[in-house]
Amino acid sequence: MIEVDLLLVHGAVVTMDAAARVFLDGAVAIHGREIVAVGPADELTTRFVARDTVDCRGCAIIPGLINAHAHVPMSLLRGLVADQQLDVWLFGYMFPVESRFVDREFVFTGTQLSCAEMIRGGTTTFVDMYYFEEEVARAADLAGMRAICGQTVMRLPTPDAASFDEGLDRARAFIEQWHGHDRIIPTIAPHAPYTCTDTIYREAMALCRRYAVPLVTHLSETEREVDESRAEREVTPIRYAKRVGAFDGKCIAAHCVHATEDDIRLLREQHVGVVPCPSSNLKLASGIAPIRRFIEANLRLGLGTDGPASNDDQDMFTEVHLAALLPKGVSGDPTAVPARDALALATSSGARAIHLDHVIGSLEPGKRADIAVVVLGRLHSAPRYHYAPDAIYSHLVYGARSADVRDVLVDGRFLLRDHALLTINEDDVLYRAQAIANRIDSFLAEREDNLLDKILAIGGVQQSEIFEVQAKALIDARQAEQVVHSLTEPGITVTKASERTQYDTYFVWDDEGRGRIRIREDHRTDPGARAEPKYTITLISPALRGEYQMAILFGRARYTAPADRTLRFYREYFQPDRVIDIEKRRRRWRILYRDADFAVNLDTLAGHGHPGPYLEIKSRTWSRKDAEHKVELIGELLARFGVPESALVRQEYVELER
Amino acid sequence: MIEVDLLLVHGAVVTMDAAARVFLDGAVAIHGREIVAVGPADELTTRFVARDTVDCRGCAIIPGLINAHAHVPMSLLRGLVADQQLDVWLFGYMFPVESRFVDREFVFTGTQLSCAEMIRGGTTTFVDMYYFEEEVARAADLAGMRAICGQTVMRLPTPDAASFDEGLDRARAFIEQWHGHDRIIPTIAPHAPYTCTDTIYREAMALCRRYAVPLVTHLSETEREVDESRAEREVTPIRYAKRVGAFDGKCIAAHCVHATEDDIRLLREQHVGVVPCPSSNLKLASGIAPIRRFIEANLRLGLGTDGPASNDDQDMFTEVHLAALLPKGVSGDPTAVPARDALALATSSGARAIHLDHVIGSLEPGKRADIAVVVLGRLHSAPRYHYAPDAIYSHLVYGARSADVRDVLVDGRFLLRDHALLTINEDDVLYRAQAIANRIDSFLAEREDNLLDKILAIGGVQQSEIFEVQAKALIDARQAEQVVHSLTEPGITVTKASERTQYDTYFVWDDEGRGRIRIREDHRTDPGARAEPKYTITLISPALRGEYQMAILFGRARYTAPADRTLRFYREYFQPDRVIDIEKRRRRWRILYRDADFAVNLDTLAGHGHPGPYLEIKSRTWSRKDAEHKVELIGELLARFGVPESALVRQEYVELER
Repeated sequence: MIEVDLLLVHGAVVTMDAAARVFLDGAVAIHGREIVAVGPADELTTRFVARDTVDCRGCAIIPGLINAHAHVPMSLLRGLVADQQLDVWLFGYMFPVESRFVDREFVFTGTQLSCAEMIRGGTTTFVDMYYFEEEVARAADLAGMRAICGQTVMRLPTPDAASFDEGLDRARAFIEQWHGHDRIIPTIAPHAPYTCTDTIYREAMALCRRYAVPLVTHLSETEREVDESRAEREVTPIRYAKRVGAFDGKCIAAHCVHATEDDIRLLREQHVGVVPCPSSNLKLASGIAPIRRFIEANLRLGLGTDGPASNDDQDMFTEVHLAALLPKGVSGDPTAVPARDALALATSSGARAIHLDHVIGSLEPGKRADIAVVVLGRLHSAPRYHYAPDAIYSHLVYGARSADVRDVLVDGRFLLRDHALLTINEDDVLYRAQAIANRIDSFLAEREDNLLDKILAIGGVQQSEIFEVQAKALIDARQAEQVVHSLTEPGITVTKASERTQYDTYFVWDDEGRGRIRIREDHRTDPGARAEPKYTITLISPALRGEYQMAILFGRARYTAPADRTLRFYREYFQPDRVIDIEKRRRRWRILYRDADFAVNLDTLAGHGHPGPYLEIKSRTWSRKDAEHKVELIGELLARFGVPESALVRQEYVELER
Repeated sequence: MIEVDLLLVHGAVVTMDAAARVFLDGAVAIHGREIVAVGPADELTTRFVARDTVDCRGCAIIPGLINAHAHVPMSLLRGLVADQQLDVWLFGYMFPVESRFVDREFVFTGTQLSCAEMIRGGTTTFVDMYYFEEEVARAADLAGMRAICGQTVMRLPTPDAASFDEGLDRARAFIEQWHGHDRIIPTIAPHAPYTCTDTIYREAMALCRRYAVPLVTHLSETEREVDESRAEREVTPIRYAKRVGAFDGKCIAAHCVHATEDDIRLLREQHVGVVPCPSSNLKLASGIAPIRRFIEANLRLGLGTDGPASNDDQDMFTEVHLAALLPKGVSGDPTAVPARDALALATSSGARAIHLDHVIGSLEPGKRADIAVVVLGRLHSAPRYHYAPDAIYSHLVYGARSADVRDVLVDGRFLLRDHALLTINEDDVLYRAQAIANRIDSFLAEREDNLLDKILAIGGVQQSEIFEVQAKALIDARQAEQVVHSLTEPGITVTKASERTQYDTYFVWDDEGRGRIRIREDHRTDPGARAEPKYTITLISPALRGEYQMAILFGRARYTAPADRTLRFYREYFQPDRVIDIEKRRRRWRILYRDADFAVNLDTLAGHGHPGPYLEIKSRTWSRKDAEHKVELIGELLARFGVPESALVRQEYVELER
């Protein structure tokens, strides 16, 4: 009798080895961190005597599941926002919240929450890509899990690095700090071709080769990404990654949803690990990866959950289930990805995808004892059939779910035993996670109520002068001519003149106290002017309105930023109650009159019930006193232009009935 | 203070009413079987005093989920077989097993198992279609659930009716028996246009109108079904259903995956309940229903699990999740079906689909108290965000799962309370389910080992004579001519002559003891013969072989049936170790010689290493004595044909090396 530390007995041992051996009444012998033997229970119990023997009757004993792509700290952002376009989700919510809230505590807490969820779901190994990755490594290590931790680098500023040089330095330091750890593999993760530079990829791979760790990145997640890459670089993101050396060592490429046949050939030749994330790819509308084609091409194929802000769980049972179902539904062939192949994606094949197949992925002597014990025959997975050898795969893939996981071991150590988490205090981590979420919740709640916060969150905002004086008059063509003529008379100096067409879109709310948003597309139409239109977004806060005989004085805050996103983005992000479009042709003069600066506009509105023409005289200032002085000057100008008080219009264009 | 039976307090009440009201700290007051009030907890606790008050802090209180299409007794066949083509699954497994095992006990036990699973998963109402439907009704009633139970009728024999007349009688009797029950609505379910007749649909709808119950059927589940309907009847299955009166009363149509725009218009005009089953539609490779289009068209749209033999669970959380995810992935639009719309499919909209929206589907005063209480904020659904009013839907659809359901009520009665099932003995039903499964398992195990059982299972089999004598010789063209000439000599009477090309496919196993299967496609090529080829499948059991000087005597069983399925079907069903194809041209004569019947074949093999020509003389008999007599006669014939012993070939064609 050989002495070992642990015997798991009388479970259905699903080895996922090359011969796909299954021992229906099987056992696994474990010593130290390794599997010593796998076989029929009666055989192993006569060969081995164990310090600890665990009865697994009614259960399957399977290799611990491998989550080959995740952003685990993002569990704290789970449920934050859903069902939005990608840009609204990313630029409107994820980036503003991450830039404000992601710090060491956030990352550590989020990772603990995810580790607890993953362990409960039978996952023993994960591949991560996030910021402050040393905290991911620390939390994963404390949880007893196996992980490949990728410090994200991109050319944009991140929560942990103001520039990519700093990001590379952080990654280098992180790898040096954690290199040589038995379960945690520290590495670098250039985010994606569209957020990185050639240099980032080259330096990242140099680092990976020096420390013999795999490079982690995103490739060809969306069709748009592929189209833009072709337009910019004439190659797909996957070809680009090859060109900048990302495949010169071990590489793990997430998604690859839109890999072409040429890409697939390349991924195989270069031994790249390919990791679709079925739930996330569906939820973010990226598409459905050609998993069946990937399997036929014998790629190193795994599955990932992606970040819990886009999934929203980290449940590999769900991903395996989808990997079995989706190819059937899409191809019309119910044999497309059989249950055994689907389970392999989270075990043996998944281990190849992350370049750890010599260590994990199957239950074989010499491999690490990373194991999940799954209860079968519960209400949703009863009864059990045995006549067909493959029935066990069907039970596991179509019947079992994460809540059925009873025990989990990594390196022969129990992390979950009889449904009890042993390495993480579940209540404590839930409490800390909710505390961080509450801070984010307050921030968002205030922001949702406050257009200024919301506009500030997307960046680039500048404040304009607070006071504005304005006179508007409905005139006719003859009066318009007179205005133009008057501008050439002594006492008035024209400093600039222009012609333009302005397309203004106003977002207004039933609650006028919220202010309004104007998005302006401004086209210069005078000869020789810039050809590119100018886009601005302006938040106009509710006005304190002072009515004078010949002018109105508004006291209101205005915040303007370049509008570098689509109207659709802004509409979905701000969710106005109404949208009002105003198209106007404007002749504009900047003038000096008695040392004061004014804008004089001659406007006609297109497609409007009150097209004009209108004369506007406006000026802005930080000073109320100055503003009141300008009210008087506007009266003088109107007199010079021959505009009577009766012609004055007291509404703004957006307030005029269409 | 008004006295009520029950108050659910301090949960997030998600009413799913027309105004989509949510009370984050809400309460529901229940009296008898009805909801009396819904609102903020502080308000209801001051208005009502209850016999029983349940604290729902940290939970959502939602309408009980509606599974609008299922075959609940099939839970007993869950995991029986997966990843097969539909015909193999249906004709090779489901039909043979159902015809042998489905009886009252099966249906009652399977329904209890399903009810237990559904209650645990928050489902309070289901729509069923199966056999012995009175047992479904009885089990659902005992479980305290609400159900629409449809007695299946089709033109084929079923486990409970030898003909459709009998099926209609059964349905009539069933409806009369259960009509007027408060929770169980008995009805009739014509299976589908491709398995029914016009009469079945017309009589079914007449019955439904008489009792004011909805007709349940399957429509447009697969593309093939639509194509075949168009070919046969020039209309889609949905148009056909209209034509035969299926929409003349309330109708619930499962699947509709391949509904056309015209169909969608028709479904809306006719107020048909439409019920895609996302998991099943994926797993059986039927496709992905256009759920977003259905929502835009304002159909009465629900969701179903379909039978657990094709799903494999009855988890409405999974179906809702898929209904939210799939339209996004397919359309490329992440806003396609927002979480709230997806949840409606299993609640308010689902109730419209099954024509019970006046009774259930939302939490409103006057509606029945069918309610699920769902724990939020567990590891996979933490943390929680509240800033956005819609966050609760996202939490429920993307985060929560069936195992999070804590309490379930139907008509104000707890069926599940604090995770404990109150109306079903879980261990007992699991035990009885496994006992039935074990019998099926044994049947299938024996059948898998025994090709005869497997071929018998698909029907139409006849046994041939047990003894066969056979001589085969490799000859040349001159000898062949001599054979033909000899047949015209006195002493031999030719009774039939033919020419044919035979394409034989042999399935062989490494274990020769299993016998072999031959599938023959037989084309008559002589002028005037039948044009249609003849297809047969023959099981040839292992032979007792007696070698004689001039002939071989085989003692072996042969079973032949018309081969009315595809080669692919048989290959996937029998799973041979090797497949051998033999194509031969055969001139064949049936002769009488000394009052004994023989077949004389002149064969050449096409595309074969040993093409021949070969002479074969064969005869079959039930008697060993007769066989031995024929051995002698074959010797005489060979002599008359001038074939020497040295020309004899002792192998069968399938044994010859290619």
